Formats: sequence, C-alpha cells, structure tokens
Amino acid sequence: MLNFQLFIPTRIIFGPGKLAELATTPNLPKGDKAMIVIGESGAMITNGYLDKVQAALAKQNVSTLVFDKISPNPQSDQIDEAAKIARDKKIDFIVALGGGSTIDAAKAIALLLTNVGKCWDYIQSGSGGGINAENPAAPLIAIPTTSGTGSEADQWAVINKSGGAEKISLGNDSTFPAMSIVDPELMISVPPRMTAYTGIDAFFHAVETFVSTKHQPVSDMLALESVHLISNYLPMAIAEGDNIEGRTVMAWASTAAGMCETLSRCISQHSLEHALSAKYPTLPHGLGLAKLSVPYFKRLIPGSPDRFEDLAMAMGYDTQSIDENMRATIFLEGLRNLLERTGFNDESLKTYGAKEEDVPELVAIAYETMGKLFDFTPTDMTQEDLECIMSEAIAS
Amino acid sequence: MLNFQLFIPTRIIFGPGKLAELATTPNLPKGDKAMIVIGESGAMITNGYLDKVQAALAKQNVSTLVFDKISPNPQSDQIDEAAKIARDKKIDFIVALGGGSTIDAAKAIALLLTNVGKCWDYIQSGSGGGINAENPAAPLIAIPTTSGTGSEADQWAVINKSGGAEKISLGNDSTFPAMSIVDPELMISVPPRMTAYTGIDAFFHAVETFVSTKHQPVSDMLALESVHLISNYLPMAIAEGDNIEGRTVMAWASTAAGMCETLSRCISQHSLEHALSAKYPTLPHGLGLAKLSVPYFKRLIPGSPDRFEDLAMAMGYDTQSIDENMRATIFLEGLRNLLERTGFNDESLKTYGAKEEDVPELVAIAYETMGKLFDFTPTDMTQEDLECIMSEAIAS
Ligand SMILES: [Zn+2]
Ligand SMILES: [Zn+2]
Repeated sequence: MLNFQLFIPTRIIFGPGKLAELATTPNLPKGDKAMIVIGESGAMITNGYLDKVQAALAKQNVSTLVFDKISPNPQSDQIDEAAKIARDKKIDFIVALGGGSTIDAAKAIALLLTNVGKCWDYIQSGSGGGINAENPAAPLIAIPTTSGTGSEADQWAVINKSGGAEKISLGNDSTFPAMSIVDPELMISVPPRMTAYTGIDAFFHAVETFVSTKHQPVSDMLALESVHLISNYLPMAIAEGDNIEGRTVMAWASTAAGMCETLSRCISQHSLEHALSAKYPTLPHGLGLAKLSVPYFKRLIPGSPDRFEDLAMAMGYDTQSIDENMRATIFLEGLRNLLERTGFNDESLKTYGAKEEDVPELVAIAYETMGKLFDFTPTDMTQEDLECIMSEAIAS
Repeated sequence: MLNFQLFIPTRIIFGPGKLAELATTPNLPKGDKAMIVIGESGAMITNGYLDKVQAALAKQNVSTLVFDKISPNPQSDQIDEAAKIARDKKIDFIVALGGGSTIDAAKAIALLLTNVGKCWDYIQSGSGGGINAENPAAPLIAIPTTSGTGSEADQWAVINKSGGAEKISLGNDSTFPAMSIVDPELMISVPPRMTAYTGIDAFFHAVETFVSTKHQPVSDMLALESVHLISNYLPMAIAEGDNIEGRTVMAWASTAAGMCETLSRCISQHSLEHALSAKYPTLPHGLGLAKLSVPYFKRLIPGSPDRFEDLAMAMGYDTQSIDENMRATIFLEGLRNLLERTGFNDESLKTYGAKEEDVPELVAIAYETMGKLFDFTPTDMTQEDLECIMSEAIAS
C-alpha cells in the first residue's frame, strides 16, 4: 500500500537566464549581510559569475563577504574557518555559488553559523561527534554552476574529515536551501570530462533511488524522467558544451535526480564510491560510480527484474519485444552503451591510485562511513560480493 | 525552453493509518495551544476523528480548542469569528480536520490570526480589500477526510463572501500547510456521491493544469499519473467505499492533482464552475465541473491536440492505433465514459436551481471573480462560447 513522505521545502527557480531574478525576487531571506561561498579555483571570479551575484544582491541592499577557500572535496577545517568568520561578522544568510562541493560546504557553514562547536561534531557516523544541531541552519541560497550532485534540491552535505579518510553526509530538515536558482547558462563553461562526471552522477542518483527500498511514487516519476533525459542528452552536453538545450535538459534531469535523493534514498553503490573518493581524494565521484556500476548492477538486477525493466524502457528500449526473462538485463546493455558514449571506457580508477590490494580496506570504509545505505539496497550482498565489485571496478 | 518554479514547502505524510503519527512526529509547529477547525455537520465528532486528533495532540502536550462552525462553502464571517477567538486565546497553530472547505477555512483563519483586520480585506479580486498580509500565517496542520480538493497540497483557500454571491481564492506562500497528514482510512466514511464529486474535482485539477499555459515538467508527470489513477479507481471508490485500496489510490491521485494546482494553474473551467457554485450555494463543486466539462473541453481540444492525446493515453487509450486527426478527441470519449461510470449522467444542475436565463450573469461572475484563470487557458474563448458552454451544462 502507498506509504511515503514528501518534503522538499526549497523554492527551485529553474531556467536559462534565471540568475537575473536574484536582483528582483521578493523571496530573499531576511537580513542585509550575506556570505558568498565559492570554490578555491577562482573559476567563479574569472567567469564573471561572482560579480553578477554581488551586483544582484547589492540591488537588494544586501552587502556581501566572499569566502573562497572551498576545495573540490570540502574539508571540515574549511567549514570551521568559514563559520567562524560568518559568526564574527554576524552574517544573515549564505549564498553558495559553484558546484556540488561548494553547495555542500555552504550547507554545513549555514548550520554552524547558528550553532556552537565544529563541523565534525555534527557528523552522525564514523568518527563524528553525533551531536544534533540545536538551532535550524541559517538560510541558504544555492546557485549551482554544474549539474549533477542535486545538492540544490536536497538537505545533504558531503564533507571530508580534515586529515582523515572519511567522507560523510551531514544535514537535517533545516539544511535544505531556502532557494535554489538553477540557471543552465552558468553551466556552459563546464569542461567536457567534468560534464561527463557530474552528469553520470545524476544518472546514478536516479537509478539508485528508483530501485531503492525507499522508492515512492514521486521519486519514481522523477527518476524515470531523469534516466530518460540523461540517456538522450548527456553525450550532447559533453560534445557540445555551449548548446544551451543540452545544458538545460541536463540541469533539469540533475535537479530531478536530486529531488529523488531527498524523496527516496541512494543505495550502496554510493557507499562504495564514497569509500573510493575518500581513499583517493583526486578521483571524481562520477568516475568512481561509472566504474563500479556494471559489476554492481549486474548483481542487483536478478532481485528486482521489474524495476530494471522500467529503467530499460526509460532508456528507450522496447522491452515488450524481448523475451520476458531478458527484459531486465537490457538495462545493463543500456548502461554499457551510455558509458561508452560518454567516454568512460577510456578511463581507469588506477590513474587515481586505486589498486587491488586496497579492496578490503575500501569495503570496510564503505560500511563504516555510509553503512546506512546498505539498508535501502533491495538485494543483500555479502562482503565477498562487495569485494568482487570493487576489484572488477579497479580492473576495468 | 524549460522555465519554471517548484515550491511546495508542505511536509506531506501519506498512507493508511498515518494519523497515528500526529502523536509522535517531531515536526509539530512550535507552541502548546492549537485550534482544531472542523465542519458544522458534526461528522468529525460522530466518526471519532476529533477524539483521535485531540488525544494525539495531548500526547504532544498541546492543548486544543475546537471551532466547529465551518459550513460546506465557508463564509467570510465564519473566518472572522474563528480568527477573533484564536487571537483572544493566543493560539499557536491551527489544525484543520475535514474536507476541502474546512482546510480552506483554516488557511484563512491562520492568516488572520497573525494579521489585523477581516477576511475579506485580504481578498485580491472582486469586492475584496486587496490588502497584502503583513505577517506570514500561523502554522497549519491539514488532515483531509475527503480526497479531491487538493487543499492539503496548495496555498489556496476558496472563501464565500457572507451575504454576497462571490466565491474567491485567497492565499500566499505562507498559507501552505506546514504539514498535511493524508490518511485514506479517514476517507472510508465518505458517502458514494460525495466520493464522486470530490474525485471528479481532482480529475479536472489534473486535466486543467496539464493543458494550462503554466504547465511544467513536474505538474505534467503528476497530472498524467492522477488522470490515469482516477480513470481506473474512481468508480471503485464510489461503489466500494470501504475498499482501502481504492481510497488510498484516490487519496494519492487527489493530492498529486493538488500539487499540480500549485505548480501549474487551473484554467477557466474552474472560473465557470465557481460562478455556478457562488450562484447556487448547494451545488457540489465537482458536479458543476462534471456538467461543464464536455461542452468546455470540446472547444479546447482543437487548439491543443498533443496535450489531449497525452491525456487520452493516460486514460488508457492506445492512441497510436487511431487516425492521427482523431487522437485528441478520444479524450472526449474517455471523459464521457468516466462521467457515465461515475453516475454523473443521472444528475442535473437544474436540481440546484440552475436555469438558462441566469447564463449571462453566470459568465459575468466567472470573469469578475476568477478572471485570472482565463489567462492560463490555452485557447481564447469568446463571451458567446462561454455562454454556450454554460447553457449546454445547464441543459445536460
Ligand atoms: Zn552522487
Ligand atoms: Zn476544484
């Protein structure tokens, strides 16, 4: 029987050119002092995006302070430093301008701004302090400049422990962005491989949440739409980065997949990948997922044939014309085909330092830091299964 | 190009038996004094629902005060009376227990509780005062006991002017319920014709928002799902009221259609119906829509053939097997068939006092009080078209 919760309180403003609405929206959070959080690469400055955001906020009589030290895998020390500044300067709200890492970091900063202590105190697993935040986070406006993580439509922040190998999610109902402006024009400057990594991440958010034991009617619809759109448009977004149609469709598919993460839950493929990127910090999350995916889903399909048949249909296969016992495995054909068309067959985890001998440690990290996602995985896998998946991913 | 806003901040808790969560949810609004708003019929008391709600809130240490004077078409005077009591008693939040009228009334009470003045001051069209509320509404928990209006998933309250013929919507971002508990077990007691009226209302919310000029990707998915489910399950929910499967599917389809109203907009069929129920106060809203629908959509189909073909597919028609020029009009066949299977062919607007000579006045009321919905209607209709639709509805 239908049984679920819907809760995405974020106002999502979507469309090419929509950044302009920041200057006119009547829905800004209260206050006149904002901290703008950007990545350390300087891309937000050289692309002119930071100027645009500052000018828009100035029109709304909001003064801004920029924190520009967020690394691609945001570190807990960076959050603590930003939170200290935000508290000292009595910042009213946070604006995140950048990719998923920047938005994640900004969620954690927003939570720390209104609460005492340090970032890792609020982490609920691994070596985290396990404290529940006493106060709701300060309001956050998220302005993504990549599409993929879905961070603009969920409450989760993935943070790395400074000096450690842990990569853990943090978040509660108050860490949803108050507003997210998803403007595909800001995504035109994303380089081809980064487009592939973030786009394939969104694809797996949709696929995983669709087969998750937590799946429900709204995430199901959004996931099938997202899988359909990404299968058709990701190769175009990679090959023709300045094609606004491809960027717009990918931005919507990624936001939809982010909503799926909130309404349903990702499954253990994400636990395994988080272990990989915690151990090999330069490995792009999407590449880790892409390499894990064939060995991983191969083992999941037999237990949920109907769900994988639906996914195959969303990818464009006429499953009705195929023998009943083979319909679900067509998903694997579609997946292999998508990985081929998006250039993942030319890449290897070994480039980032992955090696066979790390496999047991990687599986252990996956359990320790994101063990919860195993509960939402529809098929039980043994330690041996997980080690095989990891080995095959590293060998491929 | 894709261009839209998503914003439904309500936490929707859906499923049979979910009313029990009211006693344990950590997400109640702040405060320890609630006003429970119920209808004047006494059904919430005799069904035992009021007791359950009061007991659940008592477990959360919330004391309650009951306002039991809401009529089926809520009157502005009733809102003013309740708001005065809520202000005097320093109520913290409102709980609406009942059908769409009760939830609508409670939204208006919640807005008045935190603002000065009277209900009609905040009405933005017709003879309303046109004032924008200074403060956000008090938090509201909606517990629908019928499925159809979708009021649990939108910010709109339809209020009747006491002593007048106006029926107008009121609402802003703060009048979304903070939480809606949609428990299909509470809907088992709804009598067959009421089930038909509210169910067909939800059907038209989905159809109208799908063809609306404001339609967008998320409302499109939800609308097609809703149309599909209602076409298949409404006759069962009418015939076997105690079948929890039928009630559950109808509850979800109605909530989904309510989300469509929020994300997209209803169109002028609703303006025409609101004129009918303003002029003939005992006429059920769903019956008004059912009688308007065939003459109304007959005129809309030629301008939006692709959209109506999609709706026909959602109703279960294999449109690909039909001549291309005929595919959209199959929707009309599906509609006629649904009205037949749900007993609307045995009813007439005349029973409620409707007569041919009122037609020009009815069309005038539609323009005056809900003229805005004509802007979202994909095909322009002349005054003469509208009078013909109204005449045909009354004659049928
Ligand atoms: Zn991911
Ligand atoms: Zn309606």
